[in-house]
This record gives sequence, C-alpha cells and structure tokens, in this order.
Amino acid sequence: MKETEGGVCAAKGFSASGVHCGIRANHFKKDLALVVSSVRASAAAVYTSNLVQSAPIAVTKENLADGFAQAVICNSGNANTCNDNGVEIARGMCALLREHANIAENDVIVASTGVIGQTLSLEPIRAGMPALTASLASTELGGREAAEAIMTTDTVPKEAAVEFELSGTVCRLGGIAKGSGMIHPDMATLLVFLTTDAAVSPEMLQKALSDKVKGTFNMVSIDGDTSTNDMVSVLANGLAGNPVVAEEGPDFEVFAEALEEVMTKLCRMIARDGEGATKLLTCTVRGAADLATARTAARGVISSNLLKCAMYGSDANWGRVLCALGYSGADIDPQKVDVTFSSSGGAVNVCRMGRGVPFSEELASQVLGAGEIVIDIDLHAGEFTATAWGCDLTREYVNINADYRS
Amino acid sequence: MKETEGGVCAAKGFSASGVHCGIRANHFKKDLALVVSSVRASAAAVYTSNLVQSAPIAVTKENLADGFAQAVICNSGNANTCNDNGVEIARGMCALLREHANIAENDVIVASTGVIGQTLSLEPIRAGMPALTASLASTELGGREAAEAIMTTDTVPKEAAVEFELSGTVCRLGGIAKGSGMIHPDMATLLVFLTTDAAVSPEMLQKALSDKVKGTFNMVSIDGDTSTNDMVSVLANGLAGNPVVAEEGPDFEVFAEALEEVMTKLCRMIARDGEGATKLLTCTVRGAADLATARTAARGVISSNLLKCAMYGSDANWGRVLCALGYSGADIDPQKVDVTFSSSGGAVNVCRMGRGVPFSEELASQVLGAGEIVIDIDLHAGEFTATAWGCDLTREYVNINADYRS
Repeated sequence: MKETEGGVCAAKGFSASGVHCGIRANHFKKDLALVVSSVRASAAAVYTSNLVQSAPIAVTKENLADGFAQAVICNSGNANTCNDNGVEIARGMCALLREHANIAENDVIVASTGVIGQTLSLEPIRAGMPALTASLASTELGGREAAEAIMTTDTVPKEAAVEFELSGTVCRLGGIAKGSGMIHPDMATLLVFLTTDAAVSPEMLQKALSDKVKGTFNMVSIDGDTSTNDMVSVLANGLAGNPVVAEEGPDFEVFAEALEEVMTKLCRMIARDGEGATKLLTCTVRGAADLATARTAARGVISSNLLKCAMYGSDANWGRVLCALGYSGADIDPQKVDVTFSSSGGAVNVCRMGRGVPFSEELASQVLGAGEIVIDIDLHAGEFTATAWGCDLTREYVNINADYRS
Repeated sequence: MKETEGGVCAAKGFSASGVHCGIRANHFKKDLALVVSSVRASAAAVYTSNLVQSAPIAVTKENLADGFAQAVICNSGNANTCNDNGVEIARGMCALLREHANIAENDVIVASTGVIGQTLSLEPIRAGMPALTASLASTELGGREAAEAIMTTDTVPKEAAVEFELSGTVCRLGGIAKGSGMIHPDMATLLVFLTTDAAVSPEMLQKALSDKVKGTFNMVSIDGDTSTNDMVSVLANGLAGNPVVAEEGPDFEVFAEALEEVMTKLCRMIARDGEGATKLLTCTVRGAADLATARTAARGVISSNLLKCAMYGSDANWGRVLCALGYSGADIDPQKVDVTFSSSGGAVNVCRMGRGVPFSEELASQVLGAGEIVIDIDLHAGEFTATAWGCDLTREYVNINADYRS
C-alpha cells in the first residue's frame, strides 16, 4: 500500500469539479462540487445519528437503497436542514444531473453543508450546472476544486489517496472531506466522499465502510456537537479490473485497510483544521480490557473543553486528563493510569498509577509547544488500544462561532 | 416560604468563617472555610459520579455513614485528588477539628477544590486553625467569609437562604456554593454546603437531597466537564424545635421545597458566574412525553459549545438548538419543535414545527443582547417540563483555562 496523489480523482474513471454558483455571497468561495464516475458504481454510506437530519440525507438514503450510484453533488453555504421544501430541493439537485450529465437521478449521492434552517433555492445550482459539468476533470486539479467547493469554515482542502493491490491488480482509493465545526461524529460522521476503482460488491463495500468508520471518523471530536448533515460515502466503479470483492477474505482485508488508511489521513486533517485550532491532539489509550473501553476513554479525553484549553496554553495540567477519563463512561481503574505527553519536542511522563510524578516544567512546555501533541494513556488492564483525534480550544473558535450566520 | 439573609449561617446554631492559611500564594484570597453546628446534626450528601474522586470524598463518605455530622471544613487552591497521601491529609483536616473545636473527627464533612494532582500539605491548614476557629461567627459576615474561602475561579461568592414553617414552627435553610469551571454534574454536583435548623431524620434528609438534586444541580452545565470533587451536603441540627421530619408527609414536602428553592438560586448563581461567562442561559423544555426526556433535552441544549458561542455573539442561530436537541439522546420528533428566545429585551419565535419562521433580526439581537436569555422549547408531545442552566462560551473562558495551573 502506498500513498498517491489525486484525491477523489486518484481512481480510474472518476472526474470532479467545483464552482461558485452563488449560494454564497463571496464570489471567491466555490460552493458547488461534483464527482462523477464514468460508469455506475457500487455505493455505500453511513449517516449522522442526530435525530434532526438534513433533507439530502433522506434523499441519498432512498437513492442508495439499491446499492448503486454514479455521482456525488454537494453544495456548501446552506445545510438544507429544517427547511419546508428541503426534500424537493435535494431531489431537484439530483434531477439536474440527469439533465446536464445524463446520470439517472436515483444514482446520485446528494449532500449540503452550511447554516441550518435557511431556505435554499435551486436557482443558483441550476445556473451553475453548465460550468460545473464543463469543468469536470479526472485530474488532481478536478479533485482539488471539488475539495475546495465543499469547505465551510475549513482553512485548507482535505484530500488523500492510496494505491494497493487486489489479487495482483493495482487499485486506487481516494477521497475528500470537509470539517471543521459541529464535529463529534456518532455512528457516522462529517462530509466525506470516497472513490475507488476497485470492484467491490455493494454489500462488502458497506461492510468495510461501517467497520472502518468506528475507528476513524467516529474517533474525531472538534467541539462535541454532532452535526445534522454528517455523511461518509464511497463509490467503487470496478474500472481497475480486479476480480470483484464479493465476500470476506484476503482481498476484502486489503481493501478495508486501504479504506482505513485514507480515512485516518482525512481524520487527522479534519482535527488539525478544527475551527480555531492551533494544535492537532492525538489521544492513544492502550492497555484497555476491551476495544469499547479504549475508544470511549480516548473520545472522552479528546472531547474535554478543559483539557483542550490547557493544550492551547501548553499547560501540562494532567489532572484534566484523569478527570475526563473518570467521567468518560469507560470502566477504568484510576489507580492504574499512566499519562505521558509527547511531541516532536520530546516526551514527558506526568502521571504514574494515577498519581503525579515530578517532571520538568521546562521540558513539558517544550513538548506541549509543538503543533501536534500525543496524549498517551496506559490503563494497565488489558491488550486493547484506540486512538482519537481532536484539537485545542482557542479564542479563535469562539470568534468564529459567535457570529457564524453573518 | 420567603427569601432571607445569612446564607450558610441563616439557620439557628450555625457559625462559619473563612481565612487565608497559605495554600494559595495570593494573600488576599481566602483558602480555608469552616462551618460548625453548635450541636450534632443529621447529615446527607451526594457526590460526583466521576470514577476519579478526590480523597476528601472518600473520607466524607466514611464519616457520614452513620447519618450525622457537626462541621464542614473545605480548602480551595488544591483539589487533593490523585495524591498519594490524599486520604491521610483529608483525615488530618478532620482531626484538626477535634483539636481546635472539640468536634469528633468522624463528624466532619471534608472537601477540597482547586488543581488536581498537586501535593497538599497539612501544615498551612494546621497553622490556620486558630484564626479559623477564633473568627467563627453566626452572622451574615461569617457565612460570607466561608463563601469566599471556597471560591476558585468564581468572581462572586454564592449564598442563598429561605425561611419556612414546619408544623407551625419557623425554620431556616441556607447554603453556599462554588463554581465555576469543570461543571457538568451527573448524579451529583459541584461544592455546595447547606445548613438548616429544621429537625429532619438522616434518612429523610438524604431522600430530599437526592430527589431535589436531579432538577437543580444536575441541570447545570458550564463546560461539559464533570468534576472529580463534586459534593452537595446538608446539615440539619434541629434547633428550630419543629417536630422531627421522619417520614413523608406535608412537612417533608415543605422542607424539600425549601431545599429546592435554595438549590435553584445557587444553580442560577453558578451558571451566571461560569468561567468567562457574560450571560446566564436558561433552557426550558416543555411539552415532553416524560420528565427524563425533558431533562435530557434541556441539558443537551445548554451544553452545546456552538449554541453557547452563538449566544455570546447575540446570534439567533436556532439551527444549533435543533441540532443539539437532535443529538442530545432525548427521544423527540424534530417536526414538532417550537423554539422561542426571550429576555428582558422581549421575545422572538424563531422556529415552529421544526421549520424556520421569518423574524426581525433587529428584535432578535435586542433579545439576545440581554444578560439573561431564556431558550424556550416546546416539544408538543406531552405535559412534562424541565429547566437547565448554563452560560455563554467566550474568549475569556479560553483565557482562564489555557493556563490555570500558574
């Protein structure tokens, strides 16, 4: 398995584009993205567990009921959630693809991201379709433009791709994602569009995605708020020519690993670019009695507002790590917990068996001054490990969110 | 029932004091509080559900096993949590009361609040005992000094008291509380010390406290972090002379109401003085199918970082209310939800049946510009109501918590 370029266009037969169609007032910000497969593809998706869900999620669920799709259309600047005519607009977006790209409207994954409860008009989207379809490209640039068009408060586009072999055939899998606030996935997550030229049956595609989302996107938290619009989808068009992956076995394992690798990369990008963030936080919990305990504990720590503030201030306030572990819901023995902070600046063990150990404040502030901090926790209770990703909580997070609508 | 003065000294036979003994470096900040009843009193308490618990909580649980106590001693500036000799120090604090105030060491409620995982020495506490006991006063001033001595990042002391009648006898109940960060009580809460001269059996005292904490302190969230040191305790010394409340009935009801009234006042004070807060947020969820749903929904909304930022910015971003309701875990029908913001500046209905309604942005910013904002939610699904209290999330919260240890 190796890293490659091209993001959502890395795999054969996929092209993408992104334009400014006018949903946003700012003409320099693209607000409409398109990803198209040259042939119909196996499709799978997972969705937010929020009871309030965007209209495009309802429409995508209908469209993916048969396990196949051919395109993704996504606007930013408006969530199309809590709107009277939301479903009608989302269906309208799909219908535009029949008209402008000869794709059946029920073969479309449709998504929206932006402010909740603002009426969305189909007009700018209709007006943007000729430019959107005309600029479709199967190049790195095409993928990049789509990645840009789905951004909201993200400061950088997020893309990743890998190359791998299934039964001797080279395949590729890539994708794009957007963050960067209202991120606390639960059973589903954010907006992520993945593409692959591997041939995988819809059932195995869904299985790989549902399995791997648990240890990747469900382990990211920016601010504790689970969005109404979260969706991760994957299209597998089979153009690599490998024997179809239609059951568990070595090929399925390799494919699932490729999926995990791309999703993990996107997770880290999303966490690093969290709203207002200056630091990427990685929390690894090891020595847990089972995987659920490790994941619950890691998520609890990465979600603590108090710890996030301390990390912003490079303050080795490890008591907040213990506190968050204690209320996380994970069944742990506080008397057995070790905590170490590490980064490119070194490593400092601050707590052993639930008690503070003397440490150099100078070393600690050097460790915590880095742009990526690892909070390493050993529960000394078993063999399971989990990792969660998040970011620091800063004044800038408050600035961004105190007046998001305007 | 009427409001009265004196806080933790409002009830007969209670005296209190607070001094600076040297746990904190700042000489102007009191760091040791004492509350004493002239006679042994029925005692009850509830504690944090965090698995990591302070040493004083362990000692207090032992001391209250028989249902009686006579004093409260509490230091600020150090949580005495995750310390090797924590239990020894907490027991030492109790023993100092035998020596200096002739109170049996197992009749003491002991508590600590401050930084977790810092070694606490008994020496400053021992040195402070003569001044602490000499300044004990049964006056408003005594109560105020104790209220000041338990403050951490609180900006104002928090006291409340009421007067009520049990079987024709006038009784009083009052208390002090500290906030103002790491506040997200669960099954228990914060640091609150209540006193009453009503005669109540230990069993009925515990029952009233456990019942009433659910709708009061368990409905406050400042930052989503459940503390390791949370405790609410109540001492009932019987000096009012009422017939002992030893079973359910009219007197028990009146007593429980008095408890609820004082605890609700303290809740509002804690939320209003949340770290960095500029606004008190009150979320009332009505029309719920049951009480648990109403409480879960109200707590979910009041805990949303995104909504808290919007309230700071006076931004009527009601989509964040719907989003938080949706992920709160409460079983709600999004299509039936009404949302209204109100304050001294007026009221503005922003969402009806899960959909946005046109509203005046001018009126909305007038409503949200006030110091106390009510978020009123109607679920249209039943007859149950619950209220939760919280505050806005501000740049100042980040400032306070980025470097709390120093």
